[in-house]
Amino acid sequence: MNLMLIEPDELTHDNTVRLSGGRLRHLREVLRVASGATLRVGVVDGPRGTAVVRSIERDGAELECTFDATAPVKPSVDLLLALPRPKVMRRLFAQIAALGVGRIILTNAARVERDYFDAHVLSPAAYRPLLIEGLQQARDTRLPTVTIHRQFRILIEDDLEDLVPDGVRLVAHPGEAPSIAQQAIASPANRIVLAVGPEGGWNEFELTLMEHHGFLAISLGTRTLRSDTACVALLTLAHEALRGAGHRL
Amino acid sequence: MNLMLIEPDELTHDNTVRLSGGRLRHLREVLRVASGATLRVGVVDGPRGTAVVRSIERDGAELECTFDATAPVKPSVDLLLALPRPKVMRRLFAQIAALGVGRIILTNAARVERDYFDAHVLSPAAYRPLLIEGLQQARDTRLPTVTIHRQFRILIEDDLEDLVPDGVRLVAHPGEAPSIAQQAIASPANRIVLAVGPEGGWNEFELTLMEHHGFLAISLGTRTLRSDTACVALLTLAHEALRGAGHRL
Repeated sequence: MNLMLIEPDELTHDNTVRLSGGRLRHLREVLRVASGATLRVGVVDGPRGTAVVRSIERDGAELECTFDATAPVKPSVDLLLALPRPKVMRRLFAQIAALGVGRIILTNAARVERDYFDAHVLSPAAYRPLLIEGLQQARDTRLPTVTIHRQFRILIEDDLEDLVPDGVRLVAHPGEAPSIAQQAIASPANRIVLAVGPEGGWNEFELTLMEHHGFLAISLGTRTLRSDTACVALLTLAHEALRGAGHRL
Repeated sequence: MNLMLIEPDELTHDNTVRLSGGRLRHLREVLRVASGATLRVGVVDGPRGTAVVRSIERDGAELECTFDATAPVKPSVDLLLALPRPKVMRRLFAQIAALGVGRIILTNAARVERDYFDAHVLSPAAYRPLLIEGLQQARDTRLPTVTIHRQFRILIEDDLEDLVPDGVRLVAHPGEAPSIAQQAIASPANRIVLAVGPEGGWNEFELTLMEHHGFLAISLGTRTLRSDTACVALLTLAHEALRGAGHRL
């Protein structure tokens, strides 16, 4: 944990917070802080700052916080992900949040098993702590917005425009296609909406529908990666392409 | 599994192979192939090819293989990795092999726990199947060469030149530094040797020693990633930088 996140409603009007549970344990057992110590903190979807430990006891710690004037900017990549196996999804939430995305749009697809949607990890109570873990690792405060879509066609035809009005739309598919960097140079934008398919790939109908809704094909190259590795690799390249575009402007 | 790997000594002089165990189970239960079916195969460190199933029974399958004239080229990235926790290393072997590296050089560092070196996953019997799994996913045949080094200084001062004589040497460290793409443009090369530090980062002595041995600092940006996520992200960017360099030549 490189930054400790606090919920907005945990803060008193004078920016003190009383911690118990997991964060108290982390303060006592991992960071081993004493009264007077300072640490990096942040407010979920708010600014980062510094906290001074005013008191720390077995049953609670009191922190006095000072915050930056502004919150970090929202990450410039949104992820449209065909829902992977629950075990993989559980591993991915923290990694996706650490890499930085604005939205996580989880969707059905022909090669997604229907019962994946019943997984416990898709309840906010299960995934929110995983997202928070990823943000605390990456020192970010911007919680990705998660939405879950059981009907691919309705998502693409009706909902996507409201969910992600901005950005160049890229769809990853194995085979011959430009890299993310090449597409980003050809279609410059400030944001990227990245669609990552299921383990067996998108089917023809899905690819055609996305193409009709502005998605450009990109490829990771000739190596086929497991969907979680591919997701980390593609998000990394999307951020790098935006960083590169920033340098060129 | 997108390509089934065969060990060179399993092939008879007329390129047939008899499979049992895990690969037979995969043929019967996952691919559900019948006699006459064809599938993609490869020889470890040799060529890729196609196999025709001549017979498939409960106790064994016989495949007749035809191979390409040449083996795939060895990946152009070598990885020098401060040994992570055994649990993380176990997860990384297949991912690293799938992303493609020539060598995996595992090293001690000040922030690596000594007892990580006693982990079962560092025995070839444990990691070789994980590397094979990654190659089969990525349709590669080139098995990374793994070496384990308990003394960082001896590795850098005495052994590294023989292990990786070629390539631009890059060391990842959080903070202000150029990206891999920027360093690769500044110092063009056909290969990259990428050093990835432990969870808490390299210490000053290690960074200085690497700098004296030609390593250039690179950074992933302002977000701090877990070491396994960072490893996947950095290998992706190293390959992309070489791919980009190829386009520019």
